[in-house]
Amino acid sequence: MQYDIAIIGGGPAGISAAITAASKGRKVVLFEAHGFSPRLRSVAKVSDYMGIPDISGNELMDIFVNHLRQTDVEVVEEKIISLKEVGEGFVLGTPHGQYEADSVVLATGISRSTLFPGEKEFLGRGVSYCAFVDAAKYKGKRVAAIATVPDAIEEIEYLADQCEQVFFFPRYQGFVPPKKKNITVILDTPTEITGTDKVTGIRAGDEFYNVQATFVFRASDPLNSFLPGLQIRGRSIYVDDQAETNIEGVFAGGDCTGQPWQAQRAAGQGQKAALSAIRYLSRRDEGVSSHFYVLD
Amino acid sequence: MQYDIAIIGGGPAGISAAITAASKGRKVVLFEAHGFSPRLRSVAKVSDYMGIPDISGNELMDIFVNHLRQTDVEVVEEKIISLKEVGEGFVLGTPHGQYEADSVVLATGISRSTLFPGEKEFLGRGVSYCAFVDAAKYKGKRVAAIATVPDAIEEIEYLADQCEQVFFFPRYQGFVPPKKKNITVILDTPTEITGTDKVTGIRAGDEFYNVQATFVFRASDPLNSFLPGLQIRGRSIYVDDQAETNIEGVFAGGDCTGQPWQAQRAAGQGQKAALSAIRYLSRRDEGVSSHFYVLD
Repeated sequence: MQYDIAIIGGGPAGISAAITAASKGRKVVLFEAHGFSPRLRSVAKVSDYMGIPDISGNELMDIFVNHLRQTDVEVVEEKIISLKEVGEGFVLGTPHGQYEADSVVLATGISRSTLFPGEKEFLGRGVSYCAFVDAAKYKGKRVAAIATVPDAIEEIEYLADQCEQVFFFPRYQGFVPPKKKNITVILDTPTEITGTDKVTGIRAGDEFYNVQATFVFRASDPLNSFLPGLQIRGRSIYVDDQAETNIEGVFAGGDCTGQPWQAQRAAGQGQKAALSAIRYLSRRDEGVSSHFYVLD
Repeated sequence: MQYDIAIIGGGPAGISAAITAASKGRKVVLFEAHGFSPRLRSVAKVSDYMGIPDISGNELMDIFVNHLRQTDVEVVEEKIISLKEVGEGFVLGTPHGQYEADSVVLATGISRSTLFPGEKEFLGRGVSYCAFVDAAKYKGKRVAAIATVPDAIEEIEYLADQCEQVFFFPRYQGFVPPKKKNITVILDTPTEITGTDKVTGIRAGDEFYNVQATFVFRASDPLNSFLPGLQIRGRSIYVDDQAETNIEGVFAGGDCTGQPWQAQRAAGQGQKAALSAIRYLSRRDEGVSSHFYVLD
Protein backbone atom coordinates (compact mmCIF):
# COMPACT_ATOMS: atom_id res chain seq x y z
CA MET A 1 0.00 0.00 0.00
CA GLN A 2 1.40 3.36 -1.07
CA TYR A 3 0.06 6.26 1.00
CA ASP A 4 -0.12 9.87 -0.14
CA ILE A 5 0.69 11.20 3.30
CA ALA A 6 2.19 9.57 6.40
CA ILE A 7 1.58 11.46 9.63
CA ILE A 8 3.83 10.82 12.63
CA GLY A 9 2.02 11.65 15.83
CA GLY A 10 -1.62 11.52 16.95
CA GLY A 11 -1.98 14.65 19.06
CA PRO A 12 -4.10 17.63 17.97
CA ALA A 13 -1.75 18.57 15.12
CA GLY A 14 -1.46 15.06 13.68
CA ILE A 15 -5.15 14.26 13.91
CA SER A 16 -6.12 17.62 12.38
CA ALA A 17 -3.67 17.01 9.52
CA ALA A 18 -5.14 13.54 8.99
CA ILE A 19 -8.76 14.76 9.01
CA THR A 20 -8.00 17.54 6.54
CA ALA A 21 -6.05 15.28 4.17
CA ALA A 22 -8.72 12.57 4.29
CA SER A 23 -11.47 15.12 3.65
CA LYS A 24 -9.65 16.02 0.44
CA GLY A 25 -9.66 12.38 -0.66
CA ARG A 26 -6.03 11.56 0.12
CA LYS A 27 -4.80 8.15 1.35
CA VAL A 28 -3.43 8.75 4.82
CA VAL A 29 -1.68 6.64 7.46
CA LEU A 30 -1.18 8.02 10.98
CA PHE A 31 1.28 6.59 13.52
CA GLU A 32 0.64 7.03 17.24
CA ALA A 33 2.28 4.89 19.91
CA HIS A 34 1.45 6.70 23.15
CA GLY A 35 -2.35 6.67 23.45
CA PHE A 36 -2.99 9.95 21.61
CA SER A 37 -1.44 12.94 23.39
CA PRO A 38 -0.82 12.02 27.01
CA ARG A 39 0.12 15.68 27.24
CA LEU A 40 -3.30 17.10 26.33
CA ARG A 41 -4.97 14.31 28.34
CA SER A 42 -3.14 15.56 31.44
CA VAL A 43 -4.73 19.03 31.22
CA ALA A 44 -7.53 19.42 33.78
CA LYS A 45 -9.60 21.93 31.82
CA VAL A 46 -9.42 23.37 28.33
CA SER A 47 -11.45 26.57 27.82
CA ASP A 48 -10.05 27.87 24.55
CA TYR A 49 -10.71 25.20 21.92
CA MET A 50 -13.36 27.09 19.96
CA GLY A 51 -16.71 25.31 19.74
CA ILE A 52 -16.11 22.89 22.62
CA PRO A 53 -16.10 25.01 25.78
CA ASP A 54 -14.85 23.98 29.22
CA ILE A 55 -13.89 20.34 28.86
CA SER A 56 -11.16 18.18 30.33
CA GLY A 57 -8.14 17.58 28.11
CA ASN A 58 -8.85 13.86 28.30
CA GLU A 59 -12.44 14.20 27.04
CA LEU A 60 -11.40 16.67 24.34
CA MET A 61 -8.75 14.26 23.10
CA ASP A 62 -11.36 11.47 22.98
CA ILE A 63 -13.57 13.71 20.81
CA PHE A 64 -10.66 14.31 18.43
CA VAL A 65 -9.88 10.57 18.23
CA ASN A 66 -13.56 9.79 17.59
CA HIS A 67 -13.54 12.24 14.69
CA LEU A 68 -10.40 10.58 13.33
CA ARG A 69 -12.03 7.11 13.58
CA GLN A 70 -14.92 8.34 11.39
CA THR A 71 -12.53 9.01 8.49
CA ASP A 72 -10.74 6.63 6.13
CA VAL A 73 -7.38 7.33 7.78
CA GLU A 74 -5.45 4.15 8.65
CA VAL A 75 -4.28 4.42 12.24
CA VAL A 76 -1.20 2.38 13.22
CA GLU A 77 -0.61 2.34 16.96
CA GLU A 78 3.12 1.72 16.76
CA LYS A 79 6.14 3.94 17.06
CA ILE A 80 8.19 4.98 14.06
CA ILE A 81 11.72 3.61 14.39
CA SER A 82 13.04 4.54 10.95
CA LEU A 83 12.30 7.07 8.23
CA LYS A 84 14.21 7.08 4.96
CA GLU A 85 13.97 8.94 1.69
CA VAL A 86 13.73 6.31 -1.06
CA GLY A 87 13.36 7.48 -4.66
CA GLU A 88 10.71 10.19 -4.74
CA GLY A 89 9.06 9.08 -1.50
CA PHE A 90 9.64 7.80 1.99
CA VAL A 91 9.77 4.43 3.74
CA LEU A 92 8.68 4.40 7.37
CA GLY A 93 9.46 1.53 9.70
CA THR A 94 7.72 0.42 12.89
CA PRO A 95 8.79 -2.55 15.04
CA HIS A 96 6.29 -4.70 13.11
CA GLY A 97 6.06 -3.31 9.60
CA GLN A 98 7.09 -1.01 6.78
CA TYR A 99 5.01 1.70 5.11
CA GLU A 100 5.56 3.74 1.94
CA ALA A 101 4.33 7.30 1.52
CA ASP A 102 4.85 10.14 -0.95
CA SER A 103 5.03 12.79 1.77
CA VAL A 104 5.40 13.02 5.53
CA VAL A 105 3.87 15.29 8.16
CA LEU A 106 5.80 15.44 11.44
CA ALA A 107 3.49 16.08 14.40
CA THR A 108 5.59 14.47 17.09
CA GLY A 109 4.94 16.96 19.87
CA ILE A 110 7.69 17.89 22.24
CA SER A 111 8.99 16.36 25.41
CA ARG A 112 8.86 18.71 28.32
CA SER A 113 11.59 16.81 30.14
CA THR A 114 15.06 18.17 29.60
CA LEU A 115 17.86 15.97 28.37
CA PHE A 116 19.81 14.01 30.97
CA PRO A 117 23.44 15.10 31.42
CA GLY A 118 25.52 13.06 28.97
CA GLU A 119 22.51 12.13 26.83
CA LYS A 120 23.31 14.39 23.91
CA GLU A 121 27.05 13.79 24.16
CA PHE A 122 26.73 10.00 23.89
CA LEU A 123 23.83 9.81 21.38
CA GLY A 124 24.74 7.03 18.96
CA ARG A 125 27.63 6.02 21.23
CA GLY A 126 25.64 4.09 23.80
CA VAL A 127 22.60 6.37 24.14
CA SER A 128 19.61 5.08 22.16
CA TYR A 129 15.90 5.92 21.84
CA CYS A 130 14.73 2.54 20.51
CA ALA A 131 15.18 -0.96 21.93
CA PHE A 132 13.89 -2.60 18.74
CA VAL A 133 16.62 -0.92 16.71
CA ASP A 134 19.60 -1.12 19.06
CA ALA A 135 19.08 -3.88 21.67
CA ALA A 136 20.83 -6.50 19.54
CA LYS A 137 24.11 -4.55 19.84
CA TYR A 138 24.11 -5.21 23.58
CA LYS A 139 23.31 -8.93 23.66
CA GLY A 140 24.53 -10.37 26.95
CA LYS A 141 25.59 -6.93 28.26
CA ARG A 142 24.33 -4.68 31.07
CA VAL A 143 22.24 -1.66 30.04
CA ALA A 144 20.20 1.14 31.66
CA ALA A 145 16.68 2.19 30.66
CA ILE A 146 15.12 5.54 31.65
CA ALA A 147 11.40 5.88 30.88
CA THR A 148 9.16 8.95 31.29
CA VAL A 149 6.09 7.15 29.88
CA PRO A 150 4.50 3.87 31.06
CA ASP A 151 4.11 2.38 27.57
CA ALA A 152 7.89 2.00 27.34
CA ILE A 153 7.49 -1.24 29.29
CA GLU A 154 7.21 -3.34 26.12
CA GLU A 155 10.59 -2.08 24.95
CA ILE A 156 12.14 -2.56 28.38
CA GLU A 157 11.02 -6.19 28.44
CA TYR A 158 12.41 -6.60 24.92
CA LEU A 159 15.73 -5.24 26.23
CA ALA A 160 15.61 -7.76 29.07
CA ASP A 161 15.20 -10.60 26.53
CA GLN A 162 18.41 -9.54 24.77
CA CYS A 163 20.63 -8.19 27.52
CA GLU A 164 22.13 -9.71 30.66
CA GLN A 165 20.70 -7.11 32.99
CA VAL A 166 18.55 -3.97 32.71
CA PHE A 167 18.74 -1.19 35.33
CA PHE A 168 15.32 0.39 34.94
CA PHE A 169 14.68 4.00 36.08
CA PRO A 170 10.91 4.66 35.91
CA ARG A 171 10.27 8.45 35.87
CA TYR A 172 6.45 8.55 35.74
CA GLN A 173 3.35 8.24 37.94
CA GLY A 174 1.58 4.91 38.37
CA PHE A 175 4.60 2.67 38.04
CA VAL A 176 3.92 -1.09 37.95
CA PRO A 177 7.05 -3.29 38.43
CA PRO A 178 7.90 -5.47 35.44
CA LYS A 179 8.05 -9.24 35.97
CA LYS A 180 11.31 -10.28 34.30
CA LYS A 181 13.98 -11.21 36.84
CA ASN A 182 16.89 -9.48 35.09
CA ILE A 183 15.18 -6.07 35.34
CA THR A 184 16.35 -4.15 38.41
CA VAL A 185 14.12 -1.21 39.28
CA ILE A 186 15.90 1.89 40.64
CA LEU A 187 13.81 4.76 41.98
CA ASP A 188 16.66 7.25 42.39
CA THR A 189 16.85 10.07 39.85
CA PRO A 190 19.51 9.45 37.18
CA THR A 191 21.98 12.35 37.39
CA GLU A 192 24.56 11.59 34.68
CA ILE A 193 25.32 9.26 31.80
CA THR A 194 29.09 8.83 31.85
CA GLY A 195 31.70 7.35 29.53
CA THR A 196 34.87 7.90 27.57
CA ASP A 197 34.33 7.43 23.82
CA LYS A 198 31.30 5.26 24.63
CA VAL A 199 28.90 4.95 27.53
CA THR A 200 30.43 3.14 30.48
CA GLY A 201 27.94 3.87 33.24
CA ILE A 202 25.14 5.87 34.79
CA ARG A 203 24.95 7.69 38.13
CA ALA A 204 21.82 7.86 40.30
CA GLY A 205 21.55 8.82 43.94
CA ASP A 206 24.89 7.87 45.50
CA GLU A 207 25.35 4.87 43.22
CA PHE A 208 27.21 4.21 39.98
CA TYR A 209 26.01 1.47 37.64
CA ASN A 210 28.33 -0.08 35.05
CA VAL A 211 26.42 -0.26 31.76
CA GLN A 212 27.37 -0.24 28.07
CA ALA A 213 24.25 1.57 26.93
CA THR A 214 21.46 3.81 28.22
CA PHE A 215 18.05 3.70 26.52
CA VAL A 216 15.82 6.75 27.01
CA PHE A 217 12.05 6.43 26.39
CA ARG A 218 9.92 9.58 26.18
CA ALA A 219 6.52 10.42 24.64
CA SER A 220 8.43 12.11 21.85
CA ASP A 221 12.02 11.54 20.90
CA PRO A 222 14.46 14.32 20.13
CA LEU A 223 13.43 15.44 16.69
CA ASN A 224 16.45 14.77 14.59
CA SER A 225 17.09 11.29 15.92
CA PHE A 226 15.40 9.62 12.94
CA LEU A 227 15.80 12.29 10.25
CA PRO A 228 19.38 13.48 10.63
CA GLY A 229 19.33 16.29 8.03
CA LEU A 230 16.26 17.95 9.51
CA GLN A 231 16.76 21.65 10.30
CA ILE A 232 16.25 22.31 14.02
CA ARG A 233 16.15 25.59 15.92
CA GLY A 234 16.56 25.21 19.63
CA ARG A 235 14.31 22.26 20.40
CA SER A 236 11.89 22.88 17.53
CA ILE A 237 11.66 21.82 13.90
CA TYR A 238 12.16 24.89 11.73
CA VAL A 239 9.31 25.37 9.25
CA ASP A 240 8.50 28.20 6.88
CA ASP A 241 5.09 29.90 6.79
CA GLN A 242 3.73 27.06 4.64
CA ALA A 243 4.71 24.41 7.25
CA GLU A 244 7.51 23.08 5.04
CA THR A 245 10.68 21.73 6.62
CA ASN A 246 14.04 21.93 4.86
CA ILE A 247 13.50 18.43 3.44
CA GLU A 248 11.35 18.32 0.31
CA GLY A 249 8.14 16.38 0.91
CA VAL A 250 8.41 16.66 4.71
CA PHE A 251 6.06 19.05 6.55
CA ALA A 252 5.55 19.71 10.26
CA GLY A 253 2.98 21.20 12.62
CA GLY A 254 2.09 21.50 16.26
CA ASP A 255 4.24 21.65 19.37
CA CYS A 256 7.26 20.14 17.57
CA THR A 257 7.53 23.39 15.59
CA GLY A 258 7.66 25.62 18.68
CA GLN A 259 5.49 27.58 21.07
CA PRO A 260 2.76 28.40 21.91
CA TRP A 261 1.94 24.82 22.91
CA GLN A 262 -1.85 24.92 22.57
CA ALA A 263 -4.36 22.48 21.06
CA GLN A 264 -6.15 25.07 18.92
CA ARG A 265 -2.97 26.41 17.41
CA ALA A 266 -1.62 22.88 16.87
CA ALA A 267 -4.82 21.88 15.07
CA GLY A 268 -4.55 24.88 12.76
CA GLN A 269 -0.94 24.12 11.96
CA GLY A 270 -1.71 20.47 11.33
CA GLN A 271 -4.32 21.53 8.80
CA LYS A 272 -1.85 23.84 7.11
CA ALA A 273 0.81 21.11 6.95
CA ALA A 274 -1.70 18.72 5.35
CA LEU A 275 -2.79 21.31 2.77
CA SER A 276 0.84 22.07 1.94
CA ALA A 277 1.54 18.35 1.53
CA ILE A 278 -1.45 18.06 -0.81
CA ARG A 279 -0.24 21.04 -2.83
CA TYR A 280 3.23 19.48 -3.01
CA LEU A 281 1.78 16.18 -4.28
CA SER A 282 -0.46 17.90 -6.84
CA ARG A 283 2.37 19.97 -8.27
CA ARG A 284 4.74 17.02 -8.30
CA ASP A 285 2.18 15.08 -10.31
CA GLU A 286 2.20 17.98 -12.77
CA GLY A 287 6.01 17.93 -12.89
CA VAL A 288 6.41 21.24 -11.05
CA SER A 289 8.64 21.63 -8.02
CA SER A 290 6.90 23.44 -5.18
CA HIS A 291 9.66 23.40 -2.58
CA PHE A 292 9.65 27.02 -1.52
CA TYR A 293 11.53 26.55 1.76
CA VAL A 294 13.99 29.33 2.37
CA LEU A 295 16.14 29.36 5.48
CA ASP A 296 16.39 32.94 6.58
CA MET B 1 -13.65 51.37 29.79
CA GLN B 2 -10.11 50.54 28.77
CA TYR B 3 -9.79 47.12 27.14
CA ASP B 4 -6.64 45.01 27.04
CA ILE B 5 -7.37 43.72 23.57
CA ALA B 6 -9.72 44.93 20.82
CA ILE B 7 -10.49 42.34 18.16
CA ILE B 8 -11.78 43.47 14.77
CA GLY B 9 -13.78 40.71 13.11
CA GLY B 10 -15.97 37.90 14.41
CA GLY B 11 -15.14 35.02 12.10
CA PRO B 12 -13.26 31.92 13.30
CA ALA B 13 -9.99 33.82 13.83
CA GLY B 14 -11.50 36.69 15.77
CA ILE B 15 -13.69 34.52 17.97
CA SER B 16 -10.83 32.14 18.71
CA ALA B 17 -8.61 35.09 19.65
CA ALA B 18 -11.35 36.44 21.92
CA ILE B 19 -11.95 33.08 23.64
CA THR B 20 -8.25 32.56 24.27
CA ALA B 21 -7.69 36.07 25.60
CA ALA B 22 -10.77 35.89 27.85
CA SER B 23 -9.69 32.48 29.18
CA LYS B 24 -6.45 34.14 30.32
CA GLY B 25 -8.42 36.78 32.21
CA ARG B 26 -7.97 39.65 29.76
CA LYS B 27 -10.60 42.35 29.12
CA VAL B 28 -11.64 41.93 25.51
CA VAL B 29 -13.95 43.75 23.11
CA LEU B 30 -14.83 42.20 19.74
CA PHE B 31 -16.32 44.11 16.81
CA GLU B 32 -18.42 42.28 14.22
CA ALA B 33 -20.83 44.04 11.87
CA HIS B 34 -21.77 41.34 9.37
CA GLY B 35 -23.50 38.58 11.33
CA PHE B 36 -20.35 36.55 12.14
CA SER B 37 -18.64 35.23 9.02
CA PRO B 38 -21.15 35.19 6.17
CA ARG B 39 -18.31 33.45 4.38
CA LEU B 40 -18.15 30.37 6.63
CA ARG B 41 -21.95 30.39 6.89
CA SER B 42 -22.15 29.99 3.12
CA VAL B 43 -20.19 26.70 3.16
CA ALA B 44 -22.54 23.72 2.71
CA LYS B 45 -20.44 21.20 4.67
CA VAL B 46 -17.31 21.44 6.79
CA SER B 47 -15.57 18.10 7.42
CA ASP B 48 -12.21 19.21 8.73
CA TYR B 49 -12.83 21.22 11.88
CA MET B 50 -11.44 18.72 14.36
CA GLY B 51 -13.91 17.53 16.97
CA ILE B 52 -17.06 18.67 15.16
CA PRO B 53 -17.37 16.40 12.12
CA ASP B 54 -19.61 16.92 9.08
CA ILE B 55 -21.58 20.05 9.87
CA SER B 56 -22.87 22.95 7.81
CA GLY B 57 -20.80 26.11 7.93
CA ASN B 58 -23.81 27.94 9.28
CA GLU B 59 -24.30 25.55 12.21
CA LEU B 60 -20.56 25.50 12.95
CA MET B 61 -20.48 29.29 13.06
CA ASP B 62 -23.43 29.26 15.47
CA ILE B 63 -21.49 26.90 17.75
CA PHE B 64 -18.52 29.27 17.71
CA VAL B 65 -20.72 32.28 18.50
CA ASN B 66 -22.38 30.35 21.35
CA HIS B 67 -18.97 29.65 22.83
CA LEU B 68 -18.10 33.33 22.54
CA ARG B 69 -21.35 34.32 24.29
CA GLN B 70 -20.38 32.13 27.29
CA THR B 71 -17.26 34.23 27.90
CA ASP B 72 -16.86 37.72 29.36
CA VAL B 73 -15.97 39.17 25.96
CA GLU B 74 -17.93 42.32 25.13
CA VAL B 75 -19.36 41.93 21.64
CA VAL B 76 -20.13 45.12 19.71
CA GLU B 77 -22.09 44.48 16.53
CA GLU B 78 -20.91 47.58 14.71
CA LYS B 79 -18.30 48.22 12.08
CA ILE B 80 -15.01 49.88 12.87
CA ILE B 81 -14.75 53.15 10.99
CA SER B 82 -11.56 54.50 12.55
CA LEU B 83 -8.49 53.14 14.31
CA LYS B 84 -5.83 55.46 15.68
CA GLU B 85 -2.70 55.06 17.76
CA VAL B 86 -3.06 57.36 20.76
CA GLY B 87 -0.32 57.41 23.37
CA GLU B 88 0.61 53.82 24.17
CA GLY B 89 -2.71 52.42 22.99
CA PHE B 90 -5.41 52.63 20.38
CA VAL B 91 -8.76 54.36 19.96
CA LEU B 92 -11.33 52.54 17.84
CA GLY B 93 -14.40 54.25 16.46
CA THR B 94 -17.73 52.80 15.37
CA PRO B 95 -20.67 54.83 14.00
CA HIS B 96 -22.08 55.00 17.54
CA GLY B 97 -19.14 54.98 19.94
CA GLN B 98 -15.45 55.05 20.80
CA TYR B 99 -13.42 52.34 22.49
CA GLU B 100 -9.91 52.35 23.97
CA ALA B 101 -7.63 49.33 23.95
CA ASP B 102 -3.98 48.60 24.70
CA SER B 103 -3.61 46.23 21.76
CA VAL B 104 -5.48 45.24 18.61
CA VAL B 105 -6.01 41.92 16.82
CA LEU B 106 -7.03 42.24 13.17
CA ALA B 107 -9.21 39.34 12.06
CA THR B 108 -11.06 41.07 9.28
CA GLY B 109 -11.18 38.21 6.81
CA ILE B 110 -10.80 38.85 3.13
CA SER B 111 -13.20 39.80 0.42
CA ARG B 112 -13.30 37.36 -2.44
CA SER B 113 -14.65 39.97 -4.81
CA THR B 114 -12.04 41.75 -6.85
CA LEU B 115 -11.79 45.51 -6.88
CA PHE B 116 -13.94 47.40 -9.38
CA PRO B 117 -12.03 49.16 -12.16
CA GLY B 118 -11.22 52.65 -10.89
CA GLU B 119 -11.81 51.73 -7.24
CA LYS B 120 -8.16 51.71 -6.18
CA GLU B 121 -7.29 54.69 -8.38
CA PHE B 122 -9.93 56.94 -6.85
CA LEU B 123 -9.73 55.74 -3.22
CA GLY B 124 -9.92 58.86 -1.06
CA ARG B 125 -10.84 60.92 -4.13
CA GLY B 126 -14.49 59.95 -4.34
CA VAL B 127 -14.28 56.23 -3.54
CA SER B 128 -15.20 55.51 0.09
CA TYR B 129 -15.87 52.44 2.24
CA CYS B 130 -17.94 54.12 4.92
CA ALA B 131 -21.07 56.26 4.64
CA PHE B 132 -20.88 57.34 8.28
CA VAL B 133 -17.44 58.82 7.72
CA ASP B 134 -17.79 60.35 4.28
CA ALA B 135 -21.48 60.97 3.44
CA ALA B 136 -21.40 64.51 4.83
CA LYS B 137 -18.91 65.51 2.12
CA TYR B 138 -21.56 64.82 -0.52
CA LYS B 139 -24.58 66.58 1.03
CA GLY B 140 -27.06 67.37 -1.74
CA LYS B 141 -24.96 65.58 -4.38
CA ARG B 142 -25.49 62.43 -6.42
CA VAL B 143 -23.56 59.32 -5.35
CA ALA B 144 -23.33 55.64 -6.23
CA ALA B 145 -23.37 52.74 -3.74
CA ILE B 146 -22.19 49.22 -4.61
CA ALA B 147 -22.94 46.57 -1.97
CA THR B 148 -21.90 42.90 -1.92
CA VAL B 149 -23.57 42.28 1.47
CA PRO B 150 -27.22 42.90 2.48
CA ASP B 151 -26.38 44.58 5.79
CA ALA B 152 -25.02 47.59 3.89
CA ILE B 153 -28.62 48.79 3.64
CA GLU B 154 -28.34 50.86 6.85
CA GLU B 155 -25.44 52.82 5.36
CA ILE B 156 -27.20 53.22 2.03
CA GLU B 157 -30.24 54.71 3.75
CA TYR B 158 -27.92 57.01 5.70
CA LEU B 159 -26.43 58.11 2.37
CA ALA B 160 -29.95 58.79 1.06
CA ASP B 161 -30.60 61.02 4.07
CA GLN B 162 -27.58 63.17 3.22
CA CYS B 163 -27.37 63.10 -0.55
CA GLU B 164 -29.70 64.19 -3.32
CA GLN B 165 -29.78 60.82 -5.04
CA VAL B 166 -28.21 57.38 -4.52
CA PHE B 167 -27.70 54.99 -7.44
CA PHE B 168 -27.69 51.67 -5.64
CA PHE B 169 -26.07 48.59 -7.23
CA PRO B 170 -26.96 45.52 -5.11
CA ARG B 171 -24.51 42.66 -5.84
CA TYR B 172 -25.86 39.92 -3.57
CA GLN B 173 -28.59 37.28 -3.33
CA GLY B 174 -31.92 38.00 -1.64
CA PHE B 175 -32.12 41.68 -2.47
CA VAL B 176 -35.00 43.62 -0.85
CA PRO B 177 -35.60 47.09 -2.38
CA PRO B 178 -35.05 49.97 0.05
CA LYS B 179 -38.00 52.32 0.72
CA LYS B 180 -36.48 55.75 0.38
CA LYS B 181 -37.57 57.51 -2.81
CA ASN B 182 -34.19 58.99 -3.69
CA ILE B 183 -32.57 55.54 -3.92
CA THR B 184 -32.57 54.25 -7.50
CA VAL B 185 -31.85 50.53 -7.74
CA ILE B 186 -29.76 49.43 -10.73
CA LEU B 187 -29.31 45.73 -11.39
CA ASP B 188 -26.67 46.06 -14.13
CA THR B 189 -23.11 45.17 -13.17
CA PRO B 190 -20.93 48.24 -12.51
CA THR B 191 -18.04 48.10 -14.97
CA GLU B 192 -15.98 51.21 -14.19
CA ILE B 193 -15.66 54.08 -11.75
CA THR B 194 -14.51 57.03 -13.85
CA GLY B 195 -13.17 60.51 -13.17
CA THR B 196 -10.38 62.98 -13.70
CA ASP B 197 -8.75 64.03 -10.42
CA LYS B 198 -11.94 63.00 -8.61
CA VAL B 199 -14.81 60.61 -9.30
CA THR B 200 -17.22 61.98 -11.88
CA GLY B 201 -19.31 58.95 -12.74
CA ILE B 202 -19.88 55.22 -12.89
CA ARG B 203 -20.60 52.93 -15.82
CA ALA B 204 -22.97 49.96 -15.71
CA GLY B 205 -24.53 48.10 -18.61
CA ASP B 206 -24.83 50.59 -21.43
CA GLU B 207 -25.45 53.52 -19.08
CA PHE B 208 -23.30 56.21 -17.51
CA TYR B 209 -24.33 57.80 -14.20
CA ASN B 210 -23.01 61.20 -13.13
CA VAL B 211 -21.97 60.92 -9.48
CA GLN B 212 -19.41 62.67 -7.26
CA ALA B 213 -18.68 59.63 -5.15
CA THR B 214 -18.92 55.85 -5.17
CA PHE B 215 -19.35 54.01 -1.87
CA VAL B 216 -18.34 50.32 -1.88
CA PHE B 217 -19.67 48.03 0.86
CA ARG B 218 -18.17 44.57 1.30
CA ALA B 219 -18.00 42.06 4.19
CA SER B 220 -14.41 43.17 4.70
CA ASP B 221 -12.83 46.35 3.49
CA PRO B 222 -9.43 46.55 1.84
CA LEU B 223 -7.02 46.11 4.72
CA ASN B 224 -5.07 49.30 4.76
CA SER B 225 -8.07 51.60 4.43
CA PHE B 226 -8.18 52.34 8.17
CA LEU B 227 -4.55 51.68 9.20
CA PRO B 228 -2.50 53.36 6.49
CA GLY B 229 0.98 52.28 7.67
CA LEU B 230 0.07 48.61 7.85
CA GLN B 231 2.43 46.38 5.88
CA ILE B 232 0.54 44.49 3.16
CA ARG B 233 1.74 41.75 0.82
CA GLY B 234 -0.53 41.23 -2.15
CA ARG B 235 -3.98 41.28 -0.57
CA SER B 236 -2.84 40.02 2.85
CA ILE B 237 -1.57 41.60 6.04
CA TYR B 238 2.04 40.60 6.51
CA VAL B 239 2.68 39.00 9.90
CA ASP B 240 5.74 37.30 11.34
CA ASP B 241 5.62 33.82 12.88
CA GLN B 242 4.31 35.31 16.13
CA ALA B 243 1.33 36.94 14.36
CA GLU B 244 2.80 40.43 14.81
CA THR B 245 2.19 43.08 12.17
CA ASN B 246 4.70 45.87 11.52
CA ILE B 247 2.82 48.13 13.93
CA GLU B 248 3.70 47.59 17.59
CA GLY B 249 0.69 46.38 19.55
CA VAL B 250 -1.21 45.28 16.43
CA PHE B 251 -1.53 41.55 15.68
CA ALA B 252 -3.42 39.68 12.96
CA GLY B 253 -4.76 36.22 12.21
CA GLY B 254 -7.02 34.31 9.86
CA ASP B 255 -7.87 34.85 6.22
CA CYS B 256 -6.67 38.48 6.28
CA THR B 257 -3.11 37.16 6.67
CA GLY B 258 -3.27 34.92 3.60
CA GLN B 259 -4.16 31.44 2.44
CA PRO B 260 -5.16 28.71 3.15
CA TRP B 261 -8.61 30.14 3.92
CA GLN B 262 -9.85 27.49 6.35
CA ALA B 263 -11.70 27.72 9.66
CA GLN B 264 -9.35 25.42 11.57
CA ARG B 265 -6.25 27.26 10.49
CA ALA B 266 -7.88 30.63 11.15
CA ALA B 267 -8.84 29.53 14.67
CA GLY B 268 -5.28 28.47 15.39
CA GLN B 269 -3.89 31.74 14.12
CA GLY B 270 -6.43 33.73 16.11
CA GLN B 271 -5.26 31.95 19.24
CA LYS B 272 -1.64 32.70 18.42
CA ALA B 273 -2.41 36.38 17.80
CA ALA B 274 -4.19 36.61 21.17
CA LEU B 275 -1.31 34.93 23.01
CA SER B 276 1.18 37.26 21.32
CA ALA B 277 -0.93 40.26 22.31
CA ILE B 278 -0.98 39.00 25.90
CA ARG B 279 2.78 38.55 25.88
CA TYR B 280 3.17 42.06 24.47
CA LEU B 281 0.99 43.52 27.24
CA SER B 282 2.80 41.58 29.97
CA ARG B 283 6.22 42.68 28.82
CA ARG B 284 5.11 46.24 28.33
CA ASP B 285 3.85 46.25 31.91
CA GLU B 286 7.35 45.13 32.91
CA GLY B 287 8.89 47.91 30.80
CA VAL B 288 10.34 45.55 28.19
CA SER B 289 9.74 45.99 24.48
CA SER B 290 8.73 42.78 22.80
CA HIS B 291 8.28 43.99 19.26
CA PHE B 292 10.22 41.35 17.37
CA TYR B 293 8.75 42.03 13.95
CA VAL B 294 11.35 41.85 11.22
CA LEU B 295 10.40 42.40 7.61
CA ASP B 296 12.43 39.97 5.57
